[in-house]
Amino acid sequence: MVSTQLPDLTPKTDKHKIVIIGGGFGGLYAAKTLGKNDAVDVTLIDKRNFHLFQPLLYQVATGSLSPADIASPLRGVLSGNQNTHVLLDEVQDVDPESKTVVMSAGIVNYDSLVVATGVSHHYFGNDQWKPFAPGLKTVEDALEIRHRIFMAFEAAEKETDPELRQAWLTFVIVGGGPTGVELAGAISEIAYSVLKKDFRKIDTTKTRVILIEGMDRVLPPYDPSLSVKAQQSLESLGVDVQTKSMVNNIEHDLVTMKQGDQQVEIRAKTIVWAAGVTASGMGKVLGDRLNAKLDRAGRVIVEPDLSIENYPDVFVIGDLANFPHQNERPLPGVAPVAMQEGQYVAKLLKERMNGKEIAPFRYMEVGSLAVIGQNSAVVDLGFVKFSGFLAWLVWIFAHVYYLIEFDNKMVVMMQWGWNYFTRGRGARLITGEKDLQSGFKLYQDYAEKDSKVNIKVEA
Amino acid sequence: MVSTQLPDLTPKTDKHKIVIIGGGFGGLYAAKTLGKNDAVDVTLIDKRNFHLFQPLLYQVATGSLSPADIASPLRGVLSGNQNTHVLLDEVQDVDPESKTVVMSAGIVNYDSLVVATGVSHHYFGNDQWKPFAPGLKTVEDALEIRHRIFMAFEAAEKETDPELRQAWLTFVIVGGGPTGVELAGAISEIAYSVLKKDFRKIDTTKTRVILIEGMDRVLPPYDPSLSVKAQQSLESLGVDVQTKSMVNNIEHDLVTMKQGDQQVEIRAKTIVWAAGVTASGMGKVLGDRLNAKLDRAGRVIVEPDLSIENYPDVFVIGDLANFPHQNERPLPGVAPVAMQEGQYVAKLLKERMNGKEIAPFRYMEVGSLAVIGQNSAVVDLGFVKFSGFLAWLVWIFAHVYYLIEFDNKMVVMMQWGWNYFTRGRGARLITGEKDLQSGFKLYQDYAEKDSKVNIKVEA
Repeated sequence: MVSTQLPDLTPKTDKHKIVIIGGGFGGLYAAKTLGKNDAVDVTLIDKRNFHLFQPLLYQVATGSLSPADIASPLRGVLSGNQNTHVLLDEVQDVDPESKTVVMSAGIVNYDSLVVATGVSHHYFGNDQWKPFAPGLKTVEDALEIRHRIFMAFEAAEKETDPELRQAWLTFVIVGGGPTGVELAGAISEIAYSVLKKDFRKIDTTKTRVILIEGMDRVLPPYDPSLSVKAQQSLESLGVDVQTKSMVNNIEHDLVTMKQGDQQVEIRAKTIVWAAGVTASGMGKVLGDRLNAKLDRAGRVIVEPDLSIENYPDVFVIGDLANFPHQNERPLPGVAPVAMQEGQYVAKLLKERMNGKEIAPFRYMEVGSLAVIGQNSAVVDLGFVKFSGFLAWLVWIFAHVYYLIEFDNKMVVMMQWGWNYFTRGRGARLITGEKDLQSGFKLYQDYAEKDSKVNIKVEA
Repeated sequence: MVSTQLPDLTPKTDKHKIVIIGGGFGGLYAAKTLGKNDAVDVTLIDKRNFHLFQPLLYQVATGSLSPADIASPLRGVLSGNQNTHVLLDEVQDVDPESKTVVMSAGIVNYDSLVVATGVSHHYFGNDQWKPFAPGLKTVEDALEIRHRIFMAFEAAEKETDPELRQAWLTFVIVGGGPTGVELAGAISEIAYSVLKKDFRKIDTTKTRVILIEGMDRVLPPYDPSLSVKAQQSLESLGVDVQTKSMVNNIEHDLVTMKQGDQQVEIRAKTIVWAAGVTASGMGKVLGDRLNAKLDRAGRVIVEPDLSIENYPDVFVIGDLANFPHQNERPLPGVAPVAMQEGQYVAKLLKERMNGKEIAPFRYMEVGSLAVIGQNSAVVDLGFVKFSGFLAWLVWIFAHVYYLIEFDNKMVVMMQWGWNYFTRGRGARLITGEKDLQSGFKLYQDYAEKDSKVNIKVEA
């Protein structure tokens, strides 16, 4: 079953060969920890050549930071680890019998395998919404959303029909988790502060930013008191927060949601999806080939030591793993969980080679953070919860601490300092392969489809 | 002839209406100067929403800087000028009778028109070379070249055939002007210093960087003594400089050049075009509609006051203008010329409204700079010529001075300082809409076409 036409890229070594798929927080922390272990040989496979600091991706989408500010080249991060190989490639299949990973352009054999390929967007079976409401997972997603946000103001400036102009000035974010909250806050700041003096025909303070959440509060996994604070902060920034609202249709410029028994329509040209996630394709591969148990979202339900049942040499970590052994629900899909899982597996492999076993994985809670805007955030450290300016400082320092761990990105700190004092957003470039012509063609298509739709949600 | 279906976006004003097409150095300096003139109303049209600091674009292409570091949002730069409107659109036509500029999505009337749309690449009639040898004019060009440079090392790492591996590790730059020299120096530094420890299978110091120039020396417009210094610096960085070499064919992985009577072939997967330029499409529009005189490259030959013959209200500035009245050859296509032309037209229009005339345009020489690598540059200030570390410092400060004029991009300075001490390149991300799959497909196509070709140029 494993194609032999592909070149064998297995490192020539007698050491225990560990293959890690995915260079996110989980895979990279596993690799970093294993890099100190002379008894093993590590191959890290990723389809991108960089590790992405996803918690700050929304700042790329809203023009505060550049992609390179939050990305570290994997080879650079791991260049000091002489036992570590990095391969830029995409995994297609795993054969547990021959212990082979099959990529697009080669194969690699493993003694132990760590799968850390994460999750992608999920539109709850409504993939037709995707072109109208992109999600935020990759650098390209962020640049696409940035393109749409800033192009919307440009289109509004040229629009002569007042109703269409307001549709260009309406932004809907679906999903009130940390990403949705952070995006909504940032778009409000753009409209009400950054761009205020930049246009001559439109008044950017007429912008509406609407955050839609299905549960009864934003930031549902956080403590309810912080959800209240977060909503207050968002509203003081001008965000229209709609809770207990289920989106049931998205069209090119129209979001329909259910609030109780009522259907409510919002006319908006820019819609961002920050709601569901689903397992990456490796979940299915592991299900098909290793009979791994999958949950409804396609994530792999792992054993207490993060391995797959009957395959003690194959581990799943990070967002792709569903670890049900600690709380009544799976551990949250956040960076600290992935990092700790990566470190755990590295330690387990080291001990196993010494003939020892270690205790099952246990996540050490480190707290939850979300930023709402300049000067405002919510922080839950378990023993203490707080919000406002102090929380914002904690948020800044927590993020810079992890950013500089890999790459000493002091530049991000400088950029933030600069943005803070100037209230500017230097990275609000509209770029991309799409040329302007096709951009405007899109607008014209939109314009042709436009019909009079009643906007029922109040500003 | 002017379509009336498009909305009229002319500002409602009784003032003298000036329309500027293009937000490069020429257009932006004209707009900045006119922004202080209360008697006029200015509309700046650009198809991008940012001004690009093109002299540093090669640093984006080689992963030292991010696009946002060298780009300033036009609206931000001009937000303080209450008399100035910015329109994001592409000009299709000009009607000198009705004094109308026709864009994709609207029309604007002018009393005076300033055209500053610059130049693009020119393959000397060999447009089939373009996909194999992209040029460097836009942010997208820079990201495409960055993609190819860093992907080449990734492909080499996985390549098992030694000859193909060397083709991946061979980089050809066509054109020995400032851009070509700067690119060649930067790629050498990447190979011999930045990436040295990052790969396990390939030795990046086996990389060959070949700079091809048709004239008998690099930097032909500079003083010959500086050309010698520049070539010495390049060679000390490991660049193979081939002068008096005319490229006469480019294929997907093969460059053929003529040296005297000999045909020489170089097998290289990464080829960058830094040679000819041609006028942007507006040159042809002005030729067709205003009978403007064009030179061989399609640039508009302007009057001594930068206007078009018989159209004293239409001016052409920057790279698109051929100004033959000062030296025996046109003024060079560099930023200082464009800036001074922009300021001149702004001043002329102000004086003309007061019934006065001003003297013909005259370019004040400010000197020539080119950087060869870390710690090395060449500088020609007219009264003094020098090279080496001091020249490099002059180069840095001259560029930062102009960068911060618009946007206070202190971050660039920080980033350079950081890169200087760490010898790192944080922005070496491989991004783009092309997914990895199609990237590898490209490689496979290449691989299939590969045949044994003798590499005749010595390393």
